[in-house]
Amino acid sequence: MSSACTACAVLTIDLDALAANWRLLNARMAEAGGECAGVVKGDGYGLGLAPVARTLFAAGCSTFFVAQIEEGVRLRRVLAEAAPADAAPADAAAPPVYVLCGLLPGTAEVFAEHGLAPVLSTPEQITGYRSLPADMRARMPRPAVHFDTGMRRLGLTVAEAEAFLDDGDAVADVDPAVVVTHLACADTPGHALNAEQNALFRRLRDRLPGARGSYANSSGLFLGGDSFFDLGRPGVALYGVNPTPGRRNPMRPVVRLSAPILQVRKIDGPESVGYGASHVMGAGSRVATVGVGYADGYPRALSNRGHGALGAWRVPVVGRVSMDLTLFDVSAVPEHEARPGAMIDLIGPLIPVDEVAADAGTIGYEILTQLGARYRRVFTGGPEGAAA
Amino acid sequence: MSSACTACAVLTIDLDALAANWRLLNARMAEAGGECAGVVKGDGYGLGLAPVARTLFAAGCSTFFVAQIEEGVRLRRVLAEAAPADAAPADAAAPPVYVLCGLLPGTAEVFAEHGLAPVLSTPEQITGYRSLPADMRARMPRPAVHFDTGMRRLGLTVAEAEAFLDDGDAVADVDPAVVVTHLACADTPGHALNAEQNALFRRLRDRLPGARGSYANSSGLFLGGDSFFDLGRPGVALYGVNPTPGRRNPMRPVVRLSAPILQVRKIDGPESVGYGASHVMGAGSRVATVGVGYADGYPRALSNRGHGALGAWRVPVVGRVSMDLTLFDVSAVPEHEARPGAMIDLIGPLIPVDEVAADAGTIGYEILTQLGARYRRVFTGGPEGAAA
Repeated sequence: MSSACTACAVLTIDLDALAANWRLLNARMAEAGGECAGVVKGDGYGLGLAPVARTLFAAGCSTFFVAQIEEGVRLRRVLAEAAPADAAPADAAAPPVYVLCGLLPGTAEVFAEHGLAPVLSTPEQITGYRSLPADMRARMPRPAVHFDTGMRRLGLTVAEAEAFLDDGDAVADVDPAVVVTHLACADTPGHALNAEQNALFRRLRDRLPGARGSYANSSGLFLGGDSFFDLGRPGVALYGVNPTPGRRNPMRPVVRLSAPILQVRKIDGPESVGYGASHVMGAGSRVATVGVGYADGYPRALSNRGHGALGAWRVPVVGRVSMDLTLFDVSAVPEHEARPGAMIDLIGPLIPVDEVAADAGTIGYEILTQLGARYRRVFTGGPEGAAA
Repeated sequence: MSSACTACAVLTIDLDALAANWRLLNARMAEAGGECAGVVKGDGYGLGLAPVARTLFAAGCSTFFVAQIEEGVRLRRVLAEAAPADAAPADAAAPPVYVLCGLLPGTAEVFAEHGLAPVLSTPEQITGYRSLPADMRARMPRPAVHFDTGMRRLGLTVAEAEAFLDDGDAVADVDPAVVVTHLACADTPGHALNAEQNALFRRLRDRLPGARGSYANSSGLFLGGDSFFDLGRPGVALYGVNPTPGRRNPMRPVVRLSAPILQVRKIDGPESVGYGASHVMGAGSRVATVGVGYADGYPRALSNRGHGALGAWRVPVVGRVSMDLTLFDVSAVPEHEARPGAMIDLIGPLIPVDEVAADAGTIGYEILTQLGARYRRVFTGGPEGAAA
């Protein structure tokens, strides 16, 4: 079916850049005596769980986080195939996979069967974990415990955390390998909540000397000296989104999204384009249509606001983004460049993912995780490069 | 892995409602002497191409439209399995599948191999179609031709259409089965462009008496008497979105999205919730967390704006929608109702998809086509009901 793909948008994923981003962040953690895990939830932030996880594993990443148990089951299979042949999947040597949604009712057998580690988030989950048969617990890596220091979303409240820490039997039974918290405002270094979360986490985490403290997300790794603890938990920065909004992006871009022009339309007089006739163009304008729309995760919020790039030219989105098609004003581009088949970058060197997000009124995380299933995915570099 | 799904959000798709919606719209067309096709692009508007197409086919739908050729290849397979055993896939009796993106360079062999019908959208595509070997053309259903009467997106301009119609050899060679246009403002009945598009299309279409005129999309089917032509082309209304914005929705809802509460958090004092500490709640409030976020297509734009329903209570989204999790204020719901495991409707009887879209600043089309891959899909009714 490859010949059909002349019409397809192409999503190019630079696995070497992904690996380099992990190594950069891991080096920051290593300076502070720690290391970095890899967060690969949301299908590897939209880029594909398997190639992303294989690349991070090959780069040296030895701890993974996912959101949901199904993601963990898939990841465990990927890692088993990537691991040396003599390592059993649930082997202690296998990279632990932590499931952030926790030990929800009815899921323990799945955790055990696939050698997944729960992130215990409520007193009930701790009680539930302690009540499991010892042989079932033995088939999971040691769990993590989640202390909520300011997100009020998942995790033990400070009072619940203290009750747990005061219960020596509970701590001994659970024997957490990792203690996790989640920063609410790490992308705003001056926010008062950062210092508050840091102090709370430090106090609680110090009572569990046998566990690694996992504190900093992507932006947290740039907050400064007391924010490292033991296990960094970067997600979005691995995939090229700027973890330091407003400052130069220290990460390498990982994603490029390019779509061929399907048709170029010359505008004869003042004419409206697209749904709702929301944009009027003058005579002599030219409009290029590409086969990408909001069904591909290119947000409708980019209507009359987004930009693409055709060669060295920035070309504005005109009219409403529709389900399968988006229009660009290519009037400023020479006709021999803006022709059917020419590629327009929707994300690329001139159009960083952070700009696309800002134009759409959102953040790079949402742009990445919504990248559509209809794109032809091309992997460059990394362990996939040869196979692609 | 079913036991893992206690944490999953459940997307319930009512195939009986889908079939009823198609029949309702088809009956409107039948009164005017025409019939309705089914538009199933974007993976059946996010609900699943295969079950959607099988349901529409079983309801009597005998013409289908997709956007991209890969969608056509998939659909042809689905329809071949659904067709009587004695009908060959590319049989003249098989329902024609029109590919709206057109006959792009390099794709002719795929059209022929899979018995797909191109929607010819440029003079170059018409020339290309005419230059194909006769035996290759014979393996495709008769094509459609797309006249652009006001979208300025895809299709022949009026001048190009007239040049084509003036060329008797070209018309005889192409022998279109369908002539298509696309309405820009059908959801705004009073918009001047509606009358303009109607008059243009009627004039062009009348010169092709051997072709069926396909004019009205979902909203177009409610524009009135001169908007029916021969072949209705509804998409979004089939899936329950209101084709008559501002008026009562004549369609049956098709989708329900429900997610179990993972955790309920009591707020002790004035405390912020979620990323960016964007919402502060008072002492005594309760917040419920569900495992659905923008990676599932639940838009981040619903942060502090959306609503769910827990039983008979409407519960507002509080804080920012995050990648895998969303928070709801359940303070008004009795504690024994708002407990872990209780289901919150994100789309449902109290929360129509059109309301979700309005809260997110978009349209139902985008909400549907972004419905996420992590949901557990449950089909009720229709030909799938027994298999589900």
